[in-house]
Amino acid sequence: MKVLYVELGDRRYPIYIGQGLLEQGDLFSAFIRGRQILIVTNDRVAPLYLDKLKQALAAYDMQSIILPDGEEYKTLEMLERIVTALLEHRFDRSCTLVALGGGVIGDIAGFAAACYQRGVDYVQVPTTLLAQVDSSVGGKTAVNHLLGKNMIGAFHQPLGVIADTATLTTLDDRQFCAGLAEVVKYGLIRDAEFFAWLEEHMAKLLDREPWALAYAIERSCRNKAIVVAADERESGLRAMLNLGHTFGHAIETGLGYGRWLHGEAVAAGIAMAADLSARIGWLDKRSVTRIGSLLDQARLPIKAPAELSTERMIGLMAVDKKARGGTIRLVLLEAIGRAIVTGYYDPVALKSTLVQCRSIAARA
Amino acid sequence: MKVLYVELGDRRYPIYIGQGLLEQGDLFSAFIRGRQILIVTNDRVAPLYLDKLKQALAAYDMQSIILPDGEEYKTLEMLERIVTALLEHRFDRSCTLVALGGGVIGDIAGFAAACYQRGVDYVQVPTTLLAQVDSSVGGKTAVNHLLGKNMIGAFHQPLGVIADTATLTTLDDRQFCAGLAEVVKYGLIRDAEFFAWLEEHMAKLLDREPWALAYAIERSCRNKAIVVAADERESGLRAMLNLGHTFGHAIETGLGYGRWLHGEAVAAGIAMAADLSARIGWLDKRSVTRIGSLLDQARLPIKAPAELSTERMIGLMAVDKKARGGTIRLVLLEAIGRAIVTGYYDPVALKSTLVQCRSIAARA
Repeated sequence: MKVLYVELGDRRYPIYIGQGLLEQGDLFSAFIRGRQILIVTNDRVAPLYLDKLKQALAAYDMQSIILPDGEEYKTLEMLERIVTALLEHRFDRSCTLVALGGGVIGDIAGFAAACYQRGVDYVQVPTTLLAQVDSSVGGKTAVNHLLGKNMIGAFHQPLGVIADTATLTTLDDRQFCAGLAEVVKYGLIRDAEFFAWLEEHMAKLLDREPWALAYAIERSCRNKAIVVAADERESGLRAMLNLGHTFGHAIETGLGYGRWLHGEAVAAGIAMAADLSARIGWLDKRSVTRIGSLLDQARLPIKAPAELSTERMIGLMAVDKKARGGTIRLVLLEAIGRAIVTGYYDPVALKSTLVQCRSIAARA
Repeated sequence: MKVLYVELGDRRYPIYIGQGLLEQGDLFSAFIRGRQILIVTNDRVAPLYLDKLKQALAAYDMQSIILPDGEEYKTLEMLERIVTALLEHRFDRSCTLVALGGGVIGDIAGFAAACYQRGVDYVQVPTTLLAQVDSSVGGKTAVNHLLGKNMIGAFHQPLGVIADTATLTTLDDRQFCAGLAEVVKYGLIRDAEFFAWLEEHMAKLLDREPWALAYAIERSCRNKAIVVAADERESGLRAMLNLGHTFGHAIETGLGYGRWLHGEAVAAGIAMAADLSARIGWLDKRSVTRIGSLLDQARLPIKAPAELSTERMIGLMAVDKKARGGTIRLVLLEAIGRAIVTGYYDPVALKSTLVQCRSIAARA
């Protein structure tokens, strides 16, 4: 088992990474402060892991709620359902929510913890690659609005993250590959050496070799923990973690939540950010090719769907949380391993990127 | 004009109290940081004050949203409506919400500001006595859940509070008197001298004499600001501000939101807290009488409605945010001017209070 820490002063918390951690009750009891626990999970994860987790937490006054699976359910309505469960069980301010699932469950359970009685504890137990390398760490919680992704939320740090890598064996290929998009992201924004490692070991990752997975998860979390500790509330540096996300969120919102997985949309977004970076002369062509082929090797899309027009994409990108005064701010690349958040780029180049990095529509 | 400050370090903010402040645009521009403003108000306040406020803020990129009036609309659905307006107008993270109205508008607009893009600025412009003396100060924001009041919310401090006492002239008597419940509360929990002043000047307040109102508002805000500065997130002391609220919230939730005004329910709750305090030997009978007659003079109820049984009241009180491990914690009085938050009281005495302090049901 590996242990990393997110260094946030008196809200410092651990990330545990290893096989079978889900079943180790003492890991949880090391930081859970109350007696009441609500496990929040979904109908895909529950049949696989809920009983195991319940056994590990049997010493607590424990309840669980099972939500429908999918990004389209990351809504205020599901938040209300969680609060209903908490109130029906008379859970007080000393209760703890445990998020058992992927990024959607982590985000919504975390937001419920941020809001319930104006803030209670929660623990992340991520069961997808994407959640283990990215969304479970850093305290960003939210639900979606029809007009924009993650638009209703809070910064609320968990008590800890318990990433059981054994859960990745039951992940379907599409979900698994989606998680690789965020792994590639860390290489691109601040860790060129890791990017090179990924180029060399992508086949091992796709085979889900345990040692390769453990390494990629740990290195991703290490990168994330450093960035979050330096800028918890995204006043600057942390926005780098959004490489590909302004394009990606536009794709997710435009298509309707749940059609593309978050990681798939981010992959296309990363390819588009690389394309734009090259168009404005920041990034060399060879790097763009390397990025595209690594994503491609990870079986991820590198173009936006044909059905979203350039105008629609720009409209959707304008509601991004990084936008200021009508300017769409983007994370762009100066090199593999070096990202910059900026609103200074040629808008004509952005349009060209949107036109070029779009799948060709099927003829009617 | 009077100016007080809520001393919260780098989040220190002013409370302005005076006649006609709503129309003074420069008061707002002193602390608003962005260009985009969304005024959130309701259909009772809008016809009276929205145009005036719009004129004062004409220099900004300004929009407004008018919600239905009433506690029954303090819901997640209304929160979603506010976010829809923000997104439709492409408001970014630098935007500011301005809450123009009573406690319901302040709570919901404040919570929308806490959640939108994980947190934006807001300003309180309270137009009811209750909001001016209590709810607009201190950063407690929330919406209601059918099973419990203020159960979904956040601590999120405003940039400032602008209390225009001229707005109180248009307040109906019932709303005005409801606000007096919170005024009386400050006297009871920590300011015996103010309580005595209220006994002497209640008639002047009911006549809405400007000098008496200004004094009562300022003294209430001063008390609140001190308590909030000492314990922003209610880890201890601040819970005192909830005198009468555990009983009161149970009444509001039990009857259905909007039937009794918040201040009316709090008044009955204060009388019940005083009754219980006397039953367990903390408070002398004369003080109980003084409290009851002051509330009565303020035309406020001092008994719970007949239709809520003792059992139902206890069930509703058990979901209060102060409850821990199944114990209902209450704010009780040792004397006029001295309150204590405690779970140590005889539960039999609580039942007696609930039986005695309940209106006699009309015979069927």
